[in-house]
Amino acid sequence: MDDPKPTADGPAFADEQTLLPAIAQQAGTGRVLMLAWMNREAYEETLRTGRAVYFSRSRGELWRKGDTSGHHQRVRRVLVDCDRDTILLEVEQLGPGACHKGYESCFYREQAADGLAEIESPTFDPKATYGD
Amino acid sequence: MDDPKPTADGPAFADEQTLLPAIAQQAGTGRVLMLAWMNREAYEETLRTGRAVYFSRSRGELWRKGDTSGHHQRVRRVLVDCDRDTILLEVEQLGPGACHKGYESCFYREQAADGLAEIESPTFDPKATYGD
Repeated sequence: MDDPKPTADGPAFADEQTLLPAIAQQAGTGRVLMLAWMNREAYEETLRTGRAVYFSRSRGELWRKGDTSGHHQRVRRVLVDCDRDTILLEVEQLGPGACHKGYESCFYREQAADGLAEIESPTFDPKATYGD
Repeated sequence: MDDPKPTADGPAFADEQTLLPAIAQQAGTGRVLMLAWMNREAYEETLRTGRAVYFSRSRGELWRKGDTSGHHQRVRRVLVDCDRDTILLEVEQLGPGACHKGYESCFYREQAADGLAEIESPTFDPKATYGD
């Protein structure tokens, strides 16, 4: 076959360096937990293992969510947008939260006129989970 | 004051060119409708007008969602993530959908083993809405 990658077979990773945004949404509640990035390798490992794997831009390596905290994400469903450049994961978040700051969701602050206001309380102690 | 922009006053737009991902989520249902990009100007206009404004990377200009289609997004709430580099809009999507391909959500396809599978039907005719 000349074209082993038909246009609609998955996200449009142009090459091995391409990073696409991946949204993790809690199955059931629909809460948006976080946004991270995936390269092709992270995406394929996520599909293969059923566990969310991202690419850490700060560390420059695959980030198997939960390896340090134990707060894995079981992937129920993977959706891809119209332009094939954004990924939406429906996940089951294990443990008390997705956020490395100790919250259920990374979106724990709302924009108010005078700055960001916390709209909820932490669900775990990040120091105890991640160390200092 | 030496620092008119305290660190927690909003998203971290490093300069006027910085683009941050913005997720639009339907208020009430929690459905993720789309992901687009915002620069500081788009963000500030969104806050000021209560209507979602993005920055179109393909056109290189502000994109007032709904100007062509009439499918505006009324913004109910603006959340910012822990790293202040992703924005989550809770919106009321006007009209039949957010996606320029004619669907309620841009995430109308699921990753299956053999490619992307449509999981829902279009809600409007994009040719009638946007022209050919």
